[in-house]
Amino acid sequence: MTSRRALLTGAAAGTAALALAGRRARAAALAPERRIGFALVGIGKLTQGQLIPALRSTKIARLTALVSGHADKAKRVAAAEGVPERSIYSYETIDRIADNPDIDVVYVVTPNAIHARDTIKAAKAGKHVLCEKPMEVSSEKCQQMIAAAKQAGRQLAIGYRCRFEPHHLEMLRVARDKELGEVRLIESAFGFSIGDPTQWRLNHALAGGGPLMDVGIYSIQSAEMIAGAYPIAVSAMTNKTDPVKFKDVEESMTYELKFPNGISASCTTTYKVNGLNRTTAYADRGTFGLTPAFNYDGIKGWRSDQKALEAPELDQFATEMDNFADCIINNRPTSVPGEMGLRDVRTMMALYEAARTGRTVTLEGVRG
Amino acid sequence: MTSRRALLTGAAAGTAALALAGRRARAAALAPERRIGFALVGIGKLTQGQLIPALRSTKIARLTALVSGHADKAKRVAAAEGVPERSIYSYETIDRIADNPDIDVVYVVTPNAIHARDTIKAAKAGKHVLCEKPMEVSSEKCQQMIAAAKQAGRQLAIGYRCRFEPHHLEMLRVARDKELGEVRLIESAFGFSIGDPTQWRLNHALAGGGPLMDVGIYSIQSAEMIAGAYPIAVSAMTNKTDPVKFKDVEESMTYELKFPNGISASCTTTYKVNGLNRTTAYADRGTFGLTPAFNYDGIKGWRSDQKALEAPELDQFATEMDNFADCIINNRPTSVPGEMGLRDVRTMMALYEAARTGRTVTLEGVRG
Repeated sequence: MTSRRALLTGAAAGTAALALAGRRARAAALAPERRIGFALVGIGKLTQGQLIPALRSTKIARLTALVSGHADKAKRVAAAEGVPERSIYSYETIDRIADNPDIDVVYVVTPNAIHARDTIKAAKAGKHVLCEKPMEVSSEKCQQMIAAAKQAGRQLAIGYRCRFEPHHLEMLRVARDKELGEVRLIESAFGFSIGDPTQWRLNHALAGGGPLMDVGIYSIQSAEMIAGAYPIAVSAMTNKTDPVKFKDVEESMTYELKFPNGISASCTTTYKVNGLNRTTAYADRGTFGLTPAFNYDGIKGWRSDQKALEAPELDQFATEMDNFADCIINNRPTSVPGEMGLRDVRTMMALYEAARTGRTVTLEGVRG
Repeated sequence: MTSRRALLTGAAAGTAALALAGRRARAAALAPERRIGFALVGIGKLTQGQLIPALRSTKIARLTALVSGHADKAKRVAAAEGVPERSIYSYETIDRIADNPDIDVVYVVTPNAIHARDTIKAAKAGKHVLCEKPMEVSSEKCQQMIAAAKQAGRQLAIGYRCRFEPHHLEMLRVARDKELGEVRLIESAFGFSIGDPTQWRLNHALAGGGPLMDVGIYSIQSAEMIAGAYPIAVSAMTNKTDPVKFKDVEESMTYELKFPNGISASCTTTYKVNGLNRTTAYADRGTFGLTPAFNYDGIKGWRSDQKALEAPELDQFATEMDNFADCIINNRPTSVPGEMGLRDVRTMMALYEAARTGRTVTLEGVRG
């Protein structure tokens, strides 16, 4: 433990050694005691279905603690994953993580509107934070999170798994290298038919919005990656055919994003029907895209010329966590910082304003 | 000739005979002299590449006259197609078609902003009119066209070829029969990279707009077919990366259509890049669509269940012209009337207003 922690602070090693350790870390697995320890906050579907299995295959990250409101569930998961009982916390005892040297990163996987609370507590406890998307439900709360991490001297990253997903990166490369010319237009859609009407995702107070906040954000991220910019103007329309189930949040939204470089994106999101899962870029000499684009696995790329848009398949969450662990080991800034999460929350709030007022809403510049 | 014209006016035959003739007309080809005679107004690319070849395979329509500003071209085409020289007109002599009993229908294929002039002249000459899409460049001019046809007691149809195209009709059937449940969302895109910068399509005075007027209208029509309604609210954004070539009209547009039954459509059109050619419907139990959707041939249907979305391939323009000829023979109203063309022009003008003002524009009800 000591040697790894020494690397983190740079106390026992120079820059060259740090860089070397970083390269090594990316190449091969670290021994458990040298890995970055992750505490998972919230043991819902994503945590149980994705994050815990992912932490079994990470190379430089490992599960070291759990925070949950459900003591029984936490104990069961801890036992199965080899997490000591002393590293199980409730939301009442979460502040005590400050005293646990096995925890380097707190991964916040609670409902959207609780992200700020948990992130700020983790930062105050001296921990780095990886926070699930969307970052929060208002730009004010995002700014508080950024400020808390800054004050603690810790990193804050957002769980934008597609930023590390090889097909998305290959799509980004085709766009950046202009292999099919300049991209001019983007289409993206992500949506699904939501089940249980009592879940927090349909509760505005906890979710901050509907499918836009939950999955529409993937289309925003994808368009931003391809355009290499943040949108500067947005317009949107929502609709609702089931005002009982969707009394609190939009059922569906069609939305448009305008980027500063003349690229526009046309997007759709929904909680009403399945099958929306794609991103397409139209460039001067051809078209390329991902269909499906946003699954946890099975992403398929295509391009209109003879070439393949292929990439290796890997565990997206393991990659995301290893990447953040590597940032911490090497003391380099994350590529998915809180500022990016804030910007997307501002974009989504602008989309809701556009839908509510029937007006195009402009977003001038980027505020960190 | 006489017997066919007698059928048209109903002077020599009762209703039963008319209906019988209609059924016969749909089933088998009529002898040339019994067919509905079409005058083509404008001998551009669409006329030469599509309409004239189509008129060689029509069953109850035939080419009987040409109107053109290019006497040499008209003579050459007339000779090749067996049109007598006396049935060639210029825009100066077009009024004389009133005296030509071989002309029943005038098919207006001139630039958008000349449609009203030619349609009104044809109606005043006592002819039925089939007018290419978009109907015109303003709702006022569309209304003048409708009034002229009404006053003359003649039919006015718009060249919406997809309304008769079997794949589009099969898509409409799947939607109407709710084979995959209720349709909730539609995506549609049509666009291409436009060539010659001097062509009339880039001249606002002649075209009335850019790709929206020319090909974006197909997405509007497709969404209307699937939704079974006209949009009641629209929003749009345009963009321009080449302000020289596109000084007069939009280069690209992303746009949204909201229908009264809770269906929304997300659409894209462009003159900048190729490859946009699709329509997709997301329904409660599955997804279905056409890719490509709007070609003259080679349309391919698909659906997310095990079933095929298949339909016979046929000459879309021949079908469109035979359909209108059948309407005239049987004295039944066209399913693609001027009122539909007017509504779509109003929708497009609303989209331009939305893009210009940054506001959602509502369209209440339908005015005939």
